[in-house]
Amino acid sequence: MTAAAGTPRVTLLSGGVGGAKLALGFYTLFDPERLTVIANNGDDMDLFGLRICPDWDILAYTLAGRVEAAQGWGIAGDTFAALEVVRELGGTDWFNLGDRDLGLHLFRTELLRQGIGLGEVCRRVAGRLGLKCALLPMCEQPVETRIGAEGGEMHLQEYLVRHRTEPEVRSIRFAGIDSATPAPGVLEAIAGAQVIVLAPSNPLISIDPILAVPGLREALRGSKALRMAVSPLVAGASLKGPTDKMMAQLGLEVSPVTVAGRYRDVLDLFVLDRQDGHLAPEVEALGLKCAVLPTVMSDLAAKQALARALLELGGSFQPGAAALSGAAS
Amino acid sequence: MTAAAGTPRVTLLSGGVGGAKLALGFYTLFDPERLTVIANNGDDMDLFGLRICPDWDILAYTLAGRVEAAQGWGIAGDTFAALEVVRELGGTDWFNLGDRDLGLHLFRTELLRQGIGLGEVCRRVAGRLGLKCALLPMCEQPVETRIGAEGGEMHLQEYLVRHRTEPEVRSIRFAGIDSATPAPGVLEAIAGAQVIVLAPSNPLISIDPILAVPGLREALRGSKALRMAVSPLVAGASLKGPTDKMMAQLGLEVSPVTVAGRYRDVLDLFVLDRQDGHLAPEVEALGLKCAVLPTVMSDLAAKQALARALLELGGSFQPGAAALSGAAS
Repeated sequence: MTAAAGTPRVTLLSGGVGGAKLALGFYTLFDPERLTVIANNGDDMDLFGLRICPDWDILAYTLAGRVEAAQGWGIAGDTFAALEVVRELGGTDWFNLGDRDLGLHLFRTELLRQGIGLGEVCRRVAGRLGLKCALLPMCEQPVETRIGAEGGEMHLQEYLVRHRTEPEVRSIRFAGIDSATPAPGVLEAIAGAQVIVLAPSNPLISIDPILAVPGLREALRGSKALRMAVSPLVAGASLKGPTDKMMAQLGLEVSPVTVAGRYRDVLDLFVLDRQDGHLAPEVEALGLKCAVLPTVMSDLAAKQALARALLELGGSFQPGAAALSGAAS
Repeated sequence: MTAAAGTPRVTLLSGGVGGAKLALGFYTLFDPERLTVIANNGDDMDLFGLRICPDWDILAYTLAGRVEAAQGWGIAGDTFAALEVVRELGGTDWFNLGDRDLGLHLFRTELLRQGIGLGEVCRRVAGRLGLKCALLPMCEQPVETRIGAEGGEMHLQEYLVRHRTEPEVRSIRFAGIDSATPAPGVLEAIAGAQVIVLAPSNPLISIDPILAVPGLREALRGSKALRMAVSPLVAGASLKGPTDKMMAQLGLEVSPVTVAGRYRDVLDLFVLDRQDGHLAPEVEALGLKCAVLPTVMSDLAAKQALARALLELGGSFQPGAAALSGAAS
């Protein structure tokens, strides 16, 4: 459905699979030209000399309708012939690299090697994929989220994919972040937004890297938008991914209140799942407004419903003509 | 068939498709452990940040029984999903890059980036492909055959593939050759050979780069092996590829005698096709022995027959039990 004129300009800060669900909710709910998504690039990596941007790619494939929906990443119907040969030859085979997916990595690497900035590369890819929203990298400089665990430090993707989140996490750092600057368009998207949403992505490895880009947190603090975050924890656990486990291993209380506290300086409002409504007083005690909504996005209607409910929190959403199924709160 | 003990140690200098035919003749005729193939690397290139070695790969795929036989390059039954996406995104799509082929390029690039030399990379790949002969790169340093044509200079692969040999060739140079050294095993394979064969590959862009590696030509000159070359021209034309056209454009007489003259200092014997027997006196006038053989390798039997005939020229081949169809001369 297309919303009426007057829908707000929304800027979403997002990691991969979880954040992409909410991104798709916004994207399909209203005029996607009003949406800017800022993707985490802390899990980018060089593999075989190719530059891979897992979160950006997941967001792009999801919004372009190409994602392998059952898993939330990769391209639907992709094949794995190249990776099979790599495996046969004894090379690195733990990263799931589909043939069509590889096509994007080849193209991106070619442009980067020509000296074109990652922001412009993303803009061109998004255009070719037919994306109607802006999908920006958080920065153009390489930043690498490093997971410290027993036996040493590893790239985040090694922790997530190669080691299936099994190592106990002792530390997280964003190598290269001090030299990073917000990618072209990022500060403008923050300054120009009417609603800013921190997606229910992993706060430690998806949202924190974005907030750690020098100047970005300050821009959020200075924004006049309604700034909100959706809890990545529901009923004491992450719906998917290791957020809960990682928080516990780092000695953090596994609670939405902990997440709200980490974001406090850049938020007006924190959204709890309706299963966690009893925590609202604790969130409010942090000096934040609190809303309680159904946040579990099991299908497209639920994604749209959450997106719609978030906009309604700002009082700025003009409902369109079509009815939404599974409408929120 | 397996030849009896006492078969000679053969070292073959080769480009891609044409040379691979003769390589396969040797490989399947006798104990392939007696064979060393030295591949031209002048047409190697970086594409999308990946290192591609077209001639080495063609030789490897051919000898491993994986080549797409109808075209003489690439992997049989390969798919092109990655390249399709590159094309869709607007990237470089003129080089035919199959998905399985890409797997090898990914693996090679990964090892090179780890600081492993190209010779060792080739050794590992050959081992994994099950090759029973040594297949060496001519050198480990990047060398790039540059074709000068109207409008500027281009990489050899751009001339061959992108521009389909259409530009008129004005010059050829091997960028980087002065810093190249023979890859590990190359000088040993020349010193230890009993028969050295220059394949009927393009002399200008396949054999010349090998001979131009500093020290290699001198090693051939000093070799005690029977050194022979097979004419790449038959009845005044190249069977496949632009050898004849390139020679003419560079002002060279399009004749096997011209080729023999270019190799004269590193040869004992030059092999003419039986259609060119009348040129034998001209070859002999260069101070070379000359043999006349059927050199057109239309099927495996013809490849084996030529290989067998070349060995018989040295008097060193012990015929096996099985009869060869289409036996030479």
